[in-house]
Amino acid sequence: MTPVRSVFFVSDHTGLTTEMLGRSLLAQFEGVEFKRITLPYVDTPEKARAAVERIRAAIGTDGQRPLVFSTLILPEVRDIIARSGALFLDLFEMFIAPIQTELGVAPSHAIGRSHAPGSNYTARMDAVNYALDHDDGGITRELHRADIVLIGVSRCGKTPTSLYLALQFGIYAANYPLVPEDFGADELPAALKPLHNKLHGLTIRPERLQQIRTERAPNSSYASLENCRLEVKQAENLMRRFDIPFLDVTSMSVEEIATTLVQQKSLHR
Amino acid sequence: MTPVRSVFFVSDHTGLTTEMLGRSLLAQFEGVEFKRITLPYVDTPEKARAAVERIRAAIGTDGQRPLVFSTLILPEVRDIIARSGALFLDLFEMFIAPIQTELGVAPSHAIGRSHAPGSNYTARMDAVNYALDHDDGGITRELHRADIVLIGVSRCGKTPTSLYLALQFGIYAANYPLVPEDFGADELPAALKPLHNKLHGLTIRPERLQQIRTERAPNSSYASLENCRLEVKQAENLMRRFDIPFLDVTSMSVEEIATTLVQQKSLHR
Repeated sequence: MTPVRSVFFVSDHTGLTTEMLGRSLLAQFEGVEFKRITLPYVDTPEKARAAVERIRAAIGTDGQRPLVFSTLILPEVRDIIARSGALFLDLFEMFIAPIQTELGVAPSHAIGRSHAPGSNYTARMDAVNYALDHDDGGITRELHRADIVLIGVSRCGKTPTSLYLALQFGIYAANYPLVPEDFGADELPAALKPLHNKLHGLTIRPERLQQIRTERAPNSSYASLENCRLEVKQAENLMRRFDIPFLDVTSMSVEEIATTLVQQKSLHR
Repeated sequence: MTPVRSVFFVSDHTGLTTEMLGRSLLAQFEGVEFKRITLPYVDTPEKARAAVERIRAAIGTDGQRPLVFSTLILPEVRDIIARSGALFLDLFEMFIAPIQTELGVAPSHAIGRSHAPGSNYTARMDAVNYALDHDDGGITRELHRADIVLIGVSRCGKTPTSLYLALQFGIYAANYPLVPEDFGADELPAALKPLHNKLHGLTIRPERLQQIRTERAPNSSYASLENCRLEVKQAENLMRRFDIPFLDVTSMSVEEIATTLVQQKSLHR
Protein backbone atom coordinates (compact mmCIF):
# COMPACT_ATOMS: atom_id res chain seq x y z
CA MET A 1 0.00 0.00 0.00
CA THR A 2 1.33 3.41 -0.98
CA PRO A 3 1.45 5.70 2.02
CA VAL A 4 -0.61 8.89 1.79
CA ARG A 5 1.39 12.03 1.15
CA SER A 6 0.17 15.22 2.80
CA VAL A 7 0.22 18.35 0.68
CA PHE A 8 -0.22 21.80 2.16
CA PHE A 9 -1.23 24.85 0.17
CA VAL A 10 -0.08 27.80 2.25
CA SER A 11 -1.02 31.33 1.29
CA ASP A 12 -1.08 34.75 2.92
CA HIS A 13 -4.31 35.43 1.06
CA THR A 14 -7.18 33.34 -0.36
CA GLY A 15 -5.03 30.34 -1.26
CA LEU A 16 -6.81 29.97 -4.60
CA THR A 17 -3.73 30.55 -6.76
CA THR A 18 -1.59 28.24 -4.63
CA GLU A 19 -4.23 25.53 -4.68
CA MET A 20 -4.77 25.76 -8.40
CA LEU A 21 -1.10 25.55 -9.33
CA GLY A 22 -0.42 22.85 -6.77
CA ARG A 23 -3.29 20.73 -8.07
CA SER A 24 -2.07 21.14 -11.66
CA LEU A 25 1.37 19.93 -10.67
CA LEU A 26 0.13 17.03 -8.56
CA ALA A 27 -2.14 15.89 -11.40
CA GLN A 28 1.06 14.96 -13.22
CA PHE A 29 1.89 12.28 -10.68
CA GLU A 30 -0.40 9.31 -11.03
CA GLY A 31 -0.72 6.53 -8.51
CA VAL A 32 0.23 8.69 -5.53
CA GLU A 33 -2.48 9.35 -2.97
CA PHE A 34 -2.41 12.92 -1.72
CA LYS A 35 -4.12 14.44 1.28
CA ARG A 36 -4.65 18.12 0.51
CA ILE A 37 -4.84 20.78 3.21
CA THR A 38 -5.24 24.47 2.38
CA LEU A 39 -4.05 27.03 4.92
CA PRO A 40 -5.20 30.47 3.73
CA TYR A 41 -4.67 33.89 5.29
CA VAL A 42 -1.31 32.96 6.86
CA ASP A 43 -0.18 36.58 7.03
CA THR A 44 1.65 36.94 10.34
CA PRO A 45 4.66 35.16 11.88
CA GLU A 46 2.30 33.83 14.57
CA LYS A 47 -0.01 32.23 12.01
CA ALA A 48 3.05 30.92 10.17
CA ARG A 49 4.23 29.17 13.33
CA ALA A 50 0.77 27.61 13.78
CA ALA A 51 0.94 26.40 10.16
CA VAL A 52 4.39 24.89 10.78
CA GLU A 53 2.96 22.94 13.72
CA ARG A 54 0.31 21.42 11.45
CA ILE A 55 2.91 20.59 8.81
CA ARG A 56 5.18 18.95 11.40
CA ALA A 57 2.27 16.94 12.81
CA ALA A 58 1.73 15.51 9.32
CA ILE A 59 5.36 14.37 9.18
CA GLY A 60 4.68 12.33 12.31
CA THR A 61 1.40 10.89 10.99
CA ASP A 62 2.55 10.10 7.46
CA GLY A 63 6.08 8.96 8.29
CA GLN A 64 7.39 11.09 5.44
CA ARG A 65 7.70 14.78 4.81
CA PRO A 66 4.76 16.64 3.20
CA LEU A 67 4.92 18.87 0.15
CA VAL A 68 4.24 22.54 0.80
CA PHE A 69 3.14 24.74 -2.09
CA SER A 70 3.02 28.42 -1.31
CA THR A 71 2.65 31.86 -2.80
CA LEU A 72 3.91 33.83 0.16
CA ILE A 73 4.56 37.48 -0.40
CA LEU A 74 5.83 38.43 3.06
CA PRO A 75 9.46 37.30 3.49
CA GLU A 76 9.11 37.04 7.29
CA VAL A 77 6.22 34.58 6.87
CA ARG A 78 7.87 32.67 4.05
CA ASP A 79 11.07 32.15 6.04
CA ILE A 80 9.16 30.48 8.86
CA ILE A 81 7.25 28.14 6.52
CA ALA A 82 10.44 27.35 4.59
CA ARG A 83 11.96 25.87 7.75
CA SER A 84 9.06 23.51 8.50
CA GLY A 85 10.96 20.42 7.36
CA ALA A 86 8.64 19.81 4.38
CA LEU A 87 9.59 19.99 0.71
CA PHE A 88 8.99 23.71 0.25
CA LEU A 89 7.97 24.98 -3.17
CA ASP A 90 7.33 28.72 -3.23
CA LEU A 91 6.21 30.34 -6.44
CA PHE A 92 6.93 33.89 -5.42
CA GLU A 93 10.47 33.33 -4.29
CA MET A 94 11.23 31.69 -7.62
CA PHE A 95 9.72 34.24 -9.95
CA ILE A 96 9.75 37.63 -8.26
CA ALA A 97 13.51 38.11 -8.68
CA PRO A 98 13.70 37.57 -12.47
CA ILE A 99 10.65 39.80 -13.01
CA GLN A 100 12.13 42.51 -10.80
CA THR A 101 15.37 42.41 -12.79
CA GLU A 102 13.47 42.54 -16.09
CA LEU A 103 11.17 45.42 -15.14
CA GLY A 104 13.64 47.36 -13.03
CA VAL A 105 10.89 47.92 -10.44
CA ALA A 106 10.90 46.68 -6.85
CA PRO A 107 7.98 44.48 -5.72
CA SER A 108 5.54 46.08 -3.29
CA HIS A 109 5.20 43.04 -1.01
CA ALA A 110 1.54 44.01 -0.61
CA ILE A 111 -0.85 41.17 0.05
CA GLY A 112 -4.07 40.53 -1.81
CA ARG A 113 -3.49 42.93 -4.66
CA SER A 114 -4.79 40.59 -7.33
CA HIS A 115 -8.14 40.14 -5.59
CA ALA A 116 -8.79 43.76 -4.69
CA PRO A 117 -12.32 44.62 -5.77
CA GLY A 118 -12.10 47.35 -8.38
CA SER A 119 -14.01 48.27 -11.49
CA ASN A 120 -13.37 44.73 -12.70
CA TYR A 121 -15.11 43.38 -9.60
CA THR A 122 -18.24 45.45 -10.22
CA ALA A 123 -18.25 44.34 -13.85
CA ARG A 124 -18.15 40.69 -12.78
CA MET A 125 -21.01 41.15 -10.32
CA ASP A 126 -23.05 42.95 -12.98
CA ALA A 127 -22.34 40.03 -15.29
CA VAL A 128 -23.58 37.55 -12.65
CA ASN A 129 -26.82 39.51 -12.32
CA TYR A 130 -27.12 39.57 -16.08
CA ALA A 131 -26.60 35.80 -16.32
CA LEU A 132 -29.24 35.19 -13.64
CA ASP A 133 -31.73 37.55 -15.30
CA HIS A 134 -31.13 35.97 -18.69
CA ASP A 135 -30.99 32.35 -17.63
CA ASP A 136 -33.13 29.85 -19.47
CA GLY A 137 -34.51 32.39 -21.93
CA GLY A 138 -35.98 34.27 -18.98
CA ILE A 139 -35.91 37.87 -20.11
CA THR A 140 -35.33 38.54 -23.80
CA ARG A 141 -35.65 42.34 -23.68
CA GLU A 142 -31.96 42.93 -23.02
CA LEU A 143 -30.62 39.96 -24.93
CA HIS A 144 -28.81 42.31 -27.32
CA ARG A 145 -26.49 43.35 -24.47
CA ALA A 146 -25.12 39.79 -24.25
CA ASP A 147 -21.54 39.05 -25.29
CA ILE A 148 -22.61 35.50 -26.03
CA VAL A 149 -25.93 33.65 -26.12
CA LEU A 150 -25.70 29.93 -25.41
CA ILE A 151 -28.30 27.67 -26.94
CA GLY A 152 -28.92 23.97 -26.50
CA VAL A 153 -31.35 21.44 -25.09
CA SER A 154 -32.44 21.58 -21.47
CA ARG A 155 -29.71 20.44 -18.99
CA CYS A 156 -26.80 20.44 -21.41
CA GLY A 157 -24.77 22.83 -19.22
CA LYS A 158 -25.82 26.30 -20.37
CA THR A 159 -26.51 27.73 -16.91
CA PRO A 160 -23.27 26.75 -15.11
CA THR A 161 -21.31 27.90 -18.17
CA SER A 162 -23.07 31.28 -18.20
CA LEU A 163 -22.43 31.76 -14.50
CA TYR A 164 -18.79 30.76 -14.81
CA LEU A 165 -18.24 33.15 -17.73
CA ALA A 166 -19.74 35.92 -15.58
CA LEU A 167 -17.89 35.19 -12.34
CA GLN A 168 -14.52 34.44 -13.87
CA PHE A 169 -14.36 36.83 -16.80
CA GLY A 170 -17.15 39.40 -16.37
CA ILE A 171 -18.65 38.22 -19.65
CA TYR A 172 -22.35 38.87 -20.24
CA ALA A 173 -23.70 35.44 -21.10
CA ALA A 174 -27.37 34.75 -21.75
CA ASN A 175 -28.75 31.34 -22.43
CA TYR A 176 -31.75 30.13 -24.32
CA PRO A 177 -33.13 26.61 -24.24
CA LEU A 178 -34.01 24.86 -27.47
CA VAL A 179 -37.34 23.13 -27.02
CA PRO A 180 -39.21 20.74 -29.30
CA GLU A 181 -41.36 23.62 -30.65
CA ASP A 182 -38.21 25.23 -32.09
CA PHE A 183 -37.04 22.20 -34.02
CA GLY A 184 -39.56 22.07 -36.82
CA ALA A 185 -39.62 25.81 -37.51
CA ASP A 186 -38.22 27.33 -40.69
CA GLU A 187 -36.68 30.15 -38.71
CA LEU A 188 -34.72 30.66 -35.55
CA PRO A 189 -36.80 31.59 -32.50
CA ALA A 190 -37.72 35.29 -32.90
CA ALA A 191 -35.64 36.43 -29.91
CA LEU A 192 -32.50 34.85 -31.38
CA LYS A 193 -32.78 35.93 -35.01
CA PRO A 194 -31.11 39.36 -34.64
CA LEU A 195 -28.26 37.87 -32.58
CA HIS A 196 -26.90 35.30 -34.99
CA ASN A 197 -23.21 36.19 -34.52
CA LYS A 198 -23.52 35.91 -30.73
CA LEU A 199 -25.07 32.46 -30.74
CA HIS A 200 -23.08 29.42 -29.74
CA GLY A 201 -24.53 25.97 -29.28
CA LEU A 202 -23.75 23.36 -26.66
CA THR A 203 -24.47 19.73 -27.34
CA ILE A 204 -24.02 16.57 -25.32
CA ARG A 205 -24.16 12.82 -25.82
CA PRO A 206 -27.71 11.55 -25.25
CA GLU A 207 -26.53 8.92 -22.74
CA ARG A 208 -24.97 11.61 -20.53
CA LEU A 209 -28.00 13.86 -20.91
CA GLN A 210 -30.22 11.01 -19.79
CA GLN A 211 -28.13 10.63 -16.61
CA ILE A 212 -28.31 14.33 -15.80
CA ARG A 213 -32.03 14.64 -16.49
CA THR A 214 -32.79 11.47 -14.56
CA GLU A 215 -31.32 13.04 -11.42
CA ARG A 216 -33.80 15.92 -11.73
CA ALA A 217 -36.83 14.03 -13.04
CA PRO A 218 -36.53 10.26 -12.59
CA ASN A 219 -38.63 8.03 -14.85
CA SER A 220 -39.99 10.94 -16.88
CA SER A 221 -40.35 10.81 -20.65
CA TYR A 222 -38.30 14.04 -20.59
CA ALA A 223 -35.34 12.09 -19.16
CA SER A 224 -35.79 8.95 -21.29
CA LEU A 225 -32.92 7.96 -23.54
CA GLU A 226 -35.27 7.92 -26.51
CA ASN A 227 -36.34 11.50 -25.92
CA CYS A 228 -32.78 12.66 -25.18
CA ARG A 229 -31.60 11.11 -28.46
CA LEU A 230 -34.35 12.81 -30.40
CA GLU A 231 -33.85 16.24 -28.83
CA VAL A 232 -30.08 16.20 -29.23
CA LYS A 233 -30.36 15.12 -32.85
CA GLN A 234 -32.93 17.77 -33.66
CA ALA A 235 -31.02 20.49 -31.82
CA GLU A 236 -27.83 19.63 -33.72
CA ASN A 237 -29.77 19.64 -36.99
CA LEU A 238 -31.17 23.07 -36.17
CA MET A 239 -27.72 24.45 -35.34
CA ARG A 240 -26.30 23.05 -38.56
CA ARG A 241 -29.24 24.38 -40.57
CA PHE A 242 -28.73 27.92 -39.27
CA ASP A 243 -24.94 27.73 -39.34
CA ILE A 244 -24.48 28.10 -35.58
CA PRO A 245 -21.21 26.69 -34.25
CA PHE A 246 -21.58 24.17 -31.45
CA LEU A 247 -19.45 22.37 -28.91
CA ASP A 248 -19.84 18.84 -27.56
CA VAL A 249 -19.47 19.33 -23.80
CA THR A 250 -19.97 15.68 -22.77
CA SER A 251 -16.40 15.25 -21.49
CA MET A 252 -15.65 18.86 -20.62
CA SER A 253 -15.47 20.67 -17.29
CA VAL A 254 -17.17 24.03 -16.96
CA GLU A 255 -13.71 25.67 -17.02
CA GLU A 256 -12.92 23.95 -20.30
CA ILE A 257 -16.27 24.87 -21.86
CA ALA A 258 -15.95 28.50 -20.80
CA THR A 259 -12.35 29.00 -21.94
CA THR A 260 -13.03 27.26 -25.26
CA LEU A 261 -16.00 29.53 -25.93
CA VAL A 262 -13.97 32.62 -25.02
CA GLN A 263 -11.35 31.54 -27.52
CA GLN A 264 -13.76 30.57 -30.31
CA LYS A 265 -15.80 33.77 -29.98
CA SER A 266 -12.69 35.94 -29.39
CA LEU A 267 -14.21 37.30 -26.19
CA HIS A 268 -12.15 39.38 -23.78
CA ARG A 269 -11.03 37.29 -20.80
CA MET B 1 5.55 57.93 -20.24
CA THR B 2 6.22 54.34 -19.20
CA PRO B 3 5.99 52.04 -22.19
CA VAL B 4 3.39 49.28 -22.05
CA ARG B 5 4.78 45.83 -21.36
CA SER B 6 3.07 42.91 -23.06
CA VAL B 7 2.50 39.82 -20.95
CA PHE B 8 1.52 36.49 -22.46
CA PHE B 9 -0.08 33.67 -20.52
CA VAL B 10 0.62 30.55 -22.55
CA SER B 11 -0.98 27.25 -21.64
CA ASP B 12 -1.57 23.89 -23.28
CA HIS B 13 -4.93 23.79 -21.55
CA THR B 14 -7.45 26.36 -20.24
CA GLY B 15 -4.83 28.95 -19.24
CA LEU B 16 -6.64 29.62 -15.97
CA THR B 17 -3.78 28.53 -13.71
CA THR B 18 -1.20 30.41 -15.75
CA GLU B 19 -3.32 33.55 -15.79
CA MET B 20 -4.01 33.42 -12.08
CA LEU B 21 -0.41 32.99 -11.04
CA GLY B 22 0.82 35.52 -13.56
CA ARG B 23 -1.67 38.11 -12.35
CA SER B 24 -0.66 37.50 -8.72
CA LEU B 25 2.97 38.08 -9.59
CA LEU B 26 2.34 41.16 -11.72
CA ALA B 27 0.19 42.70 -8.97
CA GLN B 28 3.43 43.05 -7.01
CA PHE B 29 4.82 45.55 -9.53
CA GLU B 30 3.07 48.87 -9.24
CA GLY B 31 3.37 51.67 -11.77
CA VAL B 32 4.00 49.35 -14.72
CA GLU B 33 1.30 49.17 -17.36
CA PHE B 34 0.77 45.63 -18.62
CA LYS B 35 -1.05 44.43 -21.69
CA ARG B 36 -2.26 40.91 -20.97
CA ILE B 37 -2.82 38.30 -23.67
CA THR B 38 -3.88 34.74 -22.87
CA LEU B 39 -3.08 32.01 -25.38
CA PRO B 40 -4.85 28.83 -24.23
CA TYR B 41 -4.86 25.37 -25.78
CA VAL B 42 -1.35 25.67 -27.23
CA ASP B 43 -0.87 21.92 -27.36
CA THR B 44 0.99 21.22 -30.61
CA PRO B 45 4.32 22.44 -32.03
CA GLU B 46 2.33 24.15 -34.79
CA LYS B 47 0.24 26.16 -32.32
CA ALA B 48 3.42 26.91 -30.37
CA ARG B 49 5.00 28.41 -33.48
CA ALA B 50 1.89 30.57 -34.05
CA ALA B 51 2.15 31.73 -30.42
CA VAL B 52 5.81 32.60 -30.91
CA GLU B 53 4.85 34.77 -33.89
CA ARG B 54 2.45 36.74 -31.73
CA ILE B 55 5.06 37.11 -28.99
CA ARG B 56 7.68 38.31 -31.48
CA ALA B 57 5.21 40.80 -33.00
CA ALA B 58 4.82 42.31 -29.52
CA ILE B 59 8.58 42.79 -29.25
CA GLY B 60 8.38 44.92 -32.40
CA THR B 61 5.37 46.91 -31.20
CA ASP B 62 6.51 47.49 -27.62
CA GLY B 63 10.19 48.01 -28.33
CA GLN B 64 11.00 45.68 -25.43
CA ARG B 65 10.63 41.99 -24.79
CA PRO B 66 7.36 40.69 -23.31
CA LEU B 67 7.00 38.48 -20.26
CA VAL B 68 5.72 34.98 -20.93
CA PHE B 69 4.15 33.02 -18.11
CA SER B 70 3.43 29.42 -18.89
CA THR B 71 2.39 26.11 -17.43
CA LEU B 72 3.40 23.93 -20.35
CA ILE B 73 3.36 20.22 -19.77
CA LEU B 74 4.58 19.05 -23.17
CA PRO B 75 8.36 19.51 -23.47
CA GLU B 76 8.20 19.82 -27.28
CA VAL B 77 5.78 22.75 -26.96
CA ARG B 78 7.64 24.36 -24.08
CA ASP B 79 10.95 24.29 -25.94
CA ILE B 80 9.47 26.28 -28.83
CA ILE B 81 7.90 28.93 -26.57
CA ALA B 82 11.12 29.14 -24.52
CA ARG B 83 13.00 30.32 -27.60
CA SER B 84 10.59 33.17 -28.46
CA GLY B 85 12.96 35.86 -27.23
CA ALA B 86 10.68 36.89 -24.34
CA LEU B 87 11.43 36.56 -20.65
CA PHE B 88 10.18 33.00 -20.22
CA LEU B 89 8.83 31.93 -16.84
CA ASP B 90 7.54 28.39 -16.82
CA LEU B 91 6.03 26.98 -13.68
CA PHE B 92 6.18 23.36 -14.68
CA GLU B 93 9.81 23.30 -15.66
CA MET B 94 10.71 24.79 -12.30
CA PHE B 95 8.68 22.54 -10.04
CA ILE B 96 8.18 19.20 -11.75
CA ALA B 97 11.78 18.07 -11.18
CA PRO B 98 11.92 18.58 -7.38
CA ILE B 99 8.51 16.92 -6.96
CA GLN B 100 9.58 13.99 -9.13
CA THR B 101 12.70 13.52 -7.02
CA GLU B 102 10.69 13.74 -3.79
CA LEU B 103 7.96 11.31 -4.83
CA GLY B 104 10.11 8.94 -6.85
CA VAL B 105 7.42 8.89 -9.55
CA ALA B 106 7.78 10.10 -13.14
CA PRO B 107 5.33 12.76 -14.35
CA SER B 108 2.73 11.60 -16.87
CA HIS B 109 3.01 14.66 -19.16
CA ALA B 110 -0.76 14.34 -19.68
CA ILE B 111 -2.60 17.56 -20.41
CA GLY B 112 -5.74 18.76 -18.66
CA ARG B 113 -5.67 16.30 -15.81
CA SER B 114 -6.65 18.84 -13.17
CA HIS B 115 -9.81 19.88 -15.03
CA ALA B 116 -11.04 16.42 -15.93
CA PRO B 117 -14.71 16.20 -15.06
CA GLY B 118 -15.10 13.49 -12.47
CA SER B 119 -17.25 12.96 -9.43
CA ASN B 120 -16.03 16.33 -8.19
CA TYR B 121 -17.40 17.94 -11.35
CA THR B 122 -20.86 16.46 -10.83
CA ALA B 123 -20.79 17.58 -7.20
CA ARG B 124 -20.02 21.14 -8.25
CA MET B 125 -22.82 21.19 -10.81
CA ASP B 126 -25.24 19.80 -8.22
CA ALA B 127 -24.10 22.56 -5.88
CA VAL B 128 -24.78 25.20 -8.56
CA ASN B 129 -28.28 23.86 -9.02
CA TYR B 130 -28.74 23.87 -5.27
CA ALA B 131 -27.56 27.49 -4.99
CA LEU B 132 -29.95 28.55 -7.77
CA ASP B 133 -32.87 26.70 -6.22
CA HIS B 134 -32.13 28.15 -2.80
CA ASP B 135 -31.32 31.68 -3.84
CA ASP B 136 -33.04 34.54 -2.08
CA GLY B 137 -34.94 32.29 0.32
CA GLY B 138 -36.61 30.68 -2.68
CA ILE B 139 -37.24 27.14 -1.53
CA THR B 140 -36.92 26.41 2.16
CA ARG B 141 -37.91 22.76 2.03
CA GLU B 142 -34.36 21.49 1.51
CA LEU B 143 -32.58 24.18 3.46
CA HIS B 144 -31.31 21.54 5.91
CA ARG B 145 -29.11 20.09 3.13
CA ALA B 146 -27.11 23.33 2.97
CA ASP B 147 -23.50 23.42 4.14
CA ILE B 148 -23.94 27.12 4.87
CA VAL B 149 -26.88 29.54 4.83
CA LEU B 150 -25.96 33.14 4.15
CA ILE B 151 -28.16 35.84 5.58
CA GLY B 152 -28.10 39.59 5.11
CA VAL B 153 -29.98 42.52 3.62
CA SER B 154 -30.93 42.55 -0.04
CA ARG B 155 -27.96 43.18 -2.43
CA CYS B 156 -25.17 42.65 0.09
CA GLY B 157 -23.54 39.93 -2.02
CA LYS B 158 -25.23 36.71 -0.90
CA THR B 159 -26.05 35.41 -4.39
CA PRO B 160 -22.61 35.78 -6.06
CA THR B 161 -21.01 34.32 -2.94
CA SER B 162 -23.36 31.30 -2.98
CA LEU B 163 -22.66 30.69 -6.67
CA TYR B 164 -18.92 31.02 -6.21
CA LEU B 165 -18.92 28.58 -3.27
CA ALA B 166 -20.81 26.12 -5.49
CA LEU B 167 -18.74 26.51 -8.67
CA GLN B 168 -15.35 26.64 -6.99
CA PHE B 169 -15.74 24.26 -4.07
CA GLY B 170 -18.92 22.27 -4.62
CA ILE B 171 -20.29 23.68 -1.37
CA TYR B 172 -24.08 23.71 -0.93
CA ALA B 173 -24.83 27.34 -0.11
CA ALA B 174 -28.33 28.67 0.40
CA ASN B 175 -29.09 32.30 1.04
CA TYR B 176 -31.89 34.04 2.83
CA PRO B 177 -32.62 37.74 2.70
CA LEU B 178 -33.28 39.63 5.91
CA VAL B 179 -36.22 41.93 5.32
CA PRO B 180 -37.75 44.63 7.54
CA GLU B 181 -40.40 42.19 8.81
CA ASP B 182 -37.65 40.06 10.36
CA PHE B 183 -36.00 42.84 12.32
CA GLY B 184 -38.59 43.44 15.03
CA ALA B 185 -39.32 39.77 15.71
CA ASP B 186 -38.35 38.04 18.94
CA GLU B 187 -37.26 34.98 17.02
CA LEU B 188 -35.32 34.10 13.92
CA PRO B 189 -37.42 33.53 10.80
CA ALA B 190 -39.01 30.09 11.16
CA ALA B 191 -37.07 28.56 8.25
CA LEU B 192 -33.75 29.55 9.84
CA LYS B 193 -34.36 28.56 13.44
CA PRO B 194 -33.31 24.89 13.15
CA LEU B 195 -30.16 25.84 11.19
CA HIS B 196 -28.45 28.11 13.66
CA ASN B 197 -24.98 26.58 13.32
CA LYS B 198 -25.10 26.90 9.52
CA LEU B 199 -25.99 30.58 9.47
CA HIS B 200 -23.44 33.20 8.56
CA GLY B 201 -24.22 36.86 8.05
CA LEU B 202 -22.89 39.26 5.48
CA THR B 203 -22.97 42.97 6.14
CA ILE B 204 -21.88 45.99 4.13
CA ARG B 205 -21.37 49.70 4.63
CA PRO B 206 -24.61 51.60 3.93
CA GLU B 207 -22.90 53.96 1.45
CA ARG B 208 -21.77 51.02 -0.70
CA LEU B 209 -25.17 49.35 -0.42
CA GLN B 210 -26.81 52.56 -1.63
CA GLN B 211 -24.56 52.54 -4.72
CA ILE B 212 -25.37 48.93 -5.54
CA ARG B 213 -29.11 49.30 -4.98
CA THR B 214 -29.23 52.55 -6.95
CA GLU B 215 -27.97 50.71 -10.03
CA ARG B 216 -30.93 48.33 -9.81
CA ALA B 217 -33.59 50.74 -8.59
CA PRO B 218 -32.59 54.39 -9.04
CA ASN B 219 -34.36 56.98 -6.85
CA SER B 220 -36.28 54.37 -4.89
CA SER B 221 -36.76 54.58 -1.14
CA TYR B 222 -35.32 51.02 -1.14
CA ALA B 223 -32.01 52.41 -2.44
CA SER B 224 -31.95 55.59 -0.33
CA LEU B 225 -29.03 56.06 2.03
CA GLU B 226 -31.43 56.54 4.90
CA ASN B 227 -33.11 53.20 4.27
CA CYS B 228 -29.80 51.41 3.67
CA ARG B 229 -28.49 52.75 6.98
CA LEU B 230 -31.57 51.58 8.83
CA GLU B 231 -31.64 48.11 7.25
CA VAL B 232 -27.92 47.48 7.81
CA LYS B 233 -28.15 48.61 11.44
CA GLN B 234 -31.19 46.45 12.13
CA ALA B 235 -29.71 43.44 10.35
CA GLU B 236 -26.50 43.72 12.37
CA ASN B 237 -28.54 44.08 15.57
CA LEU B 238 -30.48 40.94 14.69
CA MET B 239 -27.32 38.96 13.99
CA ARG B 240 -25.78 40.09 17.28
CA ARG B 241 -28.98 39.32 19.17
CA PHE B 242 -29.09 35.76 17.87
CA ASP B 243 -25.34 35.26 18.10
CA ILE B 244 -24.81 34.78 14.36
CA PRO B 245 -21.27 35.58 13.13
CA PHE B 246 -21.09 38.10 10.33
CA LEU B 247 -18.56 39.48 7.88
CA ASP B 248 -18.27 43.02 6.53
CA VAL B 249 -17.86 42.47 2.78
CA THR B 250 -17.66 46.12 1.73
CA SER B 251 -14.03 45.89 0.59
CA MET B 252 -13.91 42.20 -0.25
CA SER B 253 -13.96 40.38 -3.56
CA VAL B 254 -16.20 37.36 -3.99
CA GLU B 255 -13.09 35.13 -3.80
CA GLU B 256 -12.13 36.69 -0.48
CA ILE B 257 -15.64 36.41 0.95
CA ALA B 258 -15.94 32.76 -0.11
CA THR B 259 -12.53 31.63 1.15
CA THR B 260 -13.01 33.48 4.45
CA LEU B 261 -16.37 31.77 5.01
CA VAL B 262 -14.89 28.38 4.16
CA GLN B 263 -12.21 28.98 6.77
CA GLN B 264 -14.51 30.37 9.47
CA LYS B 265 -17.08 27.60 9.06
CA SER B 266 -14.38 24.90 8.58
CA LEU B 267 -16.00 23.81 5.32
CA HIS B 268 -14.26 21.39 3.00
CA ARG B 269 -12.65 23.19 0.05
